[in-house]
Amino acid sequence: MAFRLDLEDDIQLAIINIGRDSFDGHIYGKDEEDSIIDNKTSLRLIQTCPNSNARAGELVTPHGIVATPVFLPVGSQATVKAVTPDDLKELGITMVMANTYHLYLRPGIAVIEKMGGLHQFMAWDRAIITDSGGYQIFSLARLRKLSDEGVTFRSHIDGSQHLITPELAIQFQESLGADIIMVLDECPSHTDTLERVEKAMDRTHQWAERCRGVQTHGDQALFAIVQGGLFPELRRKSASFLVSLGFSGYAIGGLSLGESKALTQAIVEETVALLPENRPRHLMGVGSPEDIVESVARGIDMFDSALPTQIARKGALFTRQGRHNILRSAYSQREDPFDPDCACYTCRNFSAAYLHHLFKCKELLAYRLATIHNLHFMNSLMKAIRDAITGGTFSSFRDSFLASYQPTNDEVRLVQKKKWLDAQNRSDTIQD
Amino acid sequence: MAFRLDLEDDIQLAIINIGRDSFDGHIYGKDEEDSIIDNKTSLRLIQTCPNSNARAGELVTPHGIVATPVFLPVGSQATVKAVTPDDLKELGITMVMANTYHLYLRPGIAVIEKMGGLHQFMAWDRAIITDSGGYQIFSLARLRKLSDEGVTFRSHIDGSQHLITPELAIQFQESLGADIIMVLDECPSHTDTLERVEKAMDRTHQWAERCRGVQTHGDQALFAIVQGGLFPELRRKSASFLVSLGFSGYAIGGLSLGESKALTQAIVEETVALLPENRPRHLMGVGSPEDIVESVARGIDMFDSALPTQIARKGALFTRQGRHNILRSAYSQREDPFDPDCACYTCRNFSAAYLHHLFKCKELLAYRLATIHNLHFMNSLMKAIRDAITGGTFSSFRDSFLASYQPTNDEVRLVQKKKWLDAQNRSDTIQD
Repeated sequence: MAFRLDLEDDIQLAIINIGRDSFDGHIYGKDEEDSIIDNKTSLRLIQTCPNSNARAGELVTPHGIVATPVFLPVGSQATVKAVTPDDLKELGITMVMANTYHLYLRPGIAVIEKMGGLHQFMAWDRAIITDSGGYQIFSLARLRKLSDEGVTFRSHIDGSQHLITPELAIQFQESLGADIIMVLDECPSHTDTLERVEKAMDRTHQWAERCRGVQTHGDQALFAIVQGGLFPELRRKSASFLVSLGFSGYAIGGLSLGESKALTQAIVEETVALLPENRPRHLMGVGSPEDIVESVARGIDMFDSALPTQIARKGALFTRQGRHNILRSAYSQREDPFDPDCACYTCRNFSAAYLHHLFKCKELLAYRLATIHNLHFMNSLMKAIRDAITGGTFSSFRDSFLASYQPTNDEVRLVQKKKWLDAQNRSDTIQD
Repeated sequence: MAFRLDLEDDIQLAIINIGRDSFDGHIYGKDEEDSIIDNKTSLRLIQTCPNSNARAGELVTPHGIVATPVFLPVGSQATVKAVTPDDLKELGITMVMANTYHLYLRPGIAVIEKMGGLHQFMAWDRAIITDSGGYQIFSLARLRKLSDEGVTFRSHIDGSQHLITPELAIQFQESLGADIIMVLDECPSHTDTLERVEKAMDRTHQWAERCRGVQTHGDQALFAIVQGGLFPELRRKSASFLVSLGFSGYAIGGLSLGESKALTQAIVEETVALLPENRPRHLMGVGSPEDIVESVARGIDMFDSALPTQIARKGALFTRQGRHNILRSAYSQREDPFDPDCACYTCRNFSAAYLHHLFKCKELLAYRLATIHNLHFMNSLMKAIRDAITGGTFSSFRDSFLASYQPTNDEVRLVQKKKWLDAQNRSDTIQD
């Protein structure tokens, strides 16, 4: 029923399909055990870069085809902040990420299930991935108590106490009905000791196995999450173990939490080397253009991050040269659009001076227009990356992009780190 | 060059045109002195109601035709809060109101002039009316010092000191370039004595004359503002005086500031009786559905109010039966749209439960969707009013609307009153 794909082959073009329901005789990933991962979401690899690990493909989901590498806007609370589903479609967005932790607390999983599931609830008929909530429990929730059973925490909204187990995480995500769902994982801090990180990893592995065991919906792809902090040997161990269980895709979690960019990429490289070529690879929480380009070069297919939308609401807008803040007085009388080369709705219709004015006045329209611009930038970047890969020019694209794009200083990274550490300190996680 | 229109005639259908540039041989308003008010904005009366003073018409402006009676969404800072020009067009909005006071402070009149004027700045190619800023100086600004010359005030944003004179108010509005502009007026409180209100009225009259005298742009219509508080004799005096000067249109200011609805309507009736039939009449700051229906019956053509958009952002949404707050828990699991009979974008696409969730989470999308709903309601109401007038059924429409529409209690009115009085107390207006 399935063919083993020799991963050593120099694949230039391959159609890979991992779902039984959509099995169509093409090269098939892994072996018979795949039949357990019975879902309709699969990755078709279209082209790999001869000079790097970059690859272009298509993620086939029950809600449409998602060209990869792809950036997924984050809509934690069943809305990408400040924009409508129509805005997202006009931007060409094909998939968004929602969050089980947030939706569990508000409006509650049962409400969304009653409303016909997450797609219908948020009026989004394209693909959705839900994060299990693991990361949010460790970054947002309070007074966590960890045991092998699961994690008890207090809501960051009203302090109410909750328990989420791997089994519940899957049950919740099946009720939400996203196209791709994720295992519950334990996220240690990047400053934790090897011993502590290893313990978290082991628990993540047990939980992944339990998640896999209780999955009942055949039309949802389940992604495992590789942990192991900044320790290459743990990352290798984690990747190998999870791959041995067999998942529809593999996410890399626990990165971009304050460590250096070089270290992030080193760990990505180390991890990807052990992931099967025929499965989508998702780097969680990475969203800066330079990190995305570098991670694509290392073989990542999917990215999600609140960064582009979050900084948009602070007036920080992307250009091919780097980020600029529209609140700078230089924009106050600029009749041109913010980026005259940009084809987004905002730059097509409004002057930089107008956008500057909206931000100065804290007008709600500011946030929408800025969000549209940044999402358009991200989507255009991903398209340029895909075109470069399929056109065989990714290496030169990467060089020229990185040569002209001025990354933001470490400010944001450090703010993120501080937030994470604050959450850690605030929460007094109790290990059982 | 112009025909005198006998206002005693039982006008059932008349085309009235007050602009020299668009003079086309139809019945012409007032007499030769009209040539001074040389502008392209005019009112064509199409139909009057035989049983009330309601009338339907068309306001012809350099930026399109505006069917009247019309409700003008307020975009004080060159944006109707939370929506784009495209949203407004999709809603069928033909004219918005912006505010000279706000735009003078931010981004500054010179900036907008440099950007090609207000239409281009806010990317709105339909009609605009600008308020002179009089009302805002008296409700928002601080430490006002009034003299015959003008009003000195401190910005509510940064405390900086400014002087606005009638001449400057016109100069600013000519730079902004709206289709209709307004005279600078002095707004007394509705609790002031007759003596105080009369003094403010007299100054408003002097200022109106000065505004009229310095107007240089032939393509802008200048509206006078009738004042006189809650004293019918002053209102009559004000209307007569301003009409004797001759303006392109007449606004009624200083109402709906906390007095009873019955008193508001009594003053409207008293005032309209003295306004020429062939000029547009604008009731300033009135925006509740029941007040609009009643004021249309008394002969008002134009309304502006921040109410529908302001309450939308608090979750208060209109229906034909009255206002309901989407934050009520009754909506938390309602799969139907907020108003199943409503054809707006929001109700066509989202469940009440989703909108409730967005509000609960204070998601930015909430404010946009609610604003769209309320503006759609207002625009549909105005269309229904116009259709009823032209169809000869306004009286029964009015009766059935008021029978089924449950006005909100006085809460909002009292909040508004308190705000006004607070501003008065805060500001220590000094009379010269």
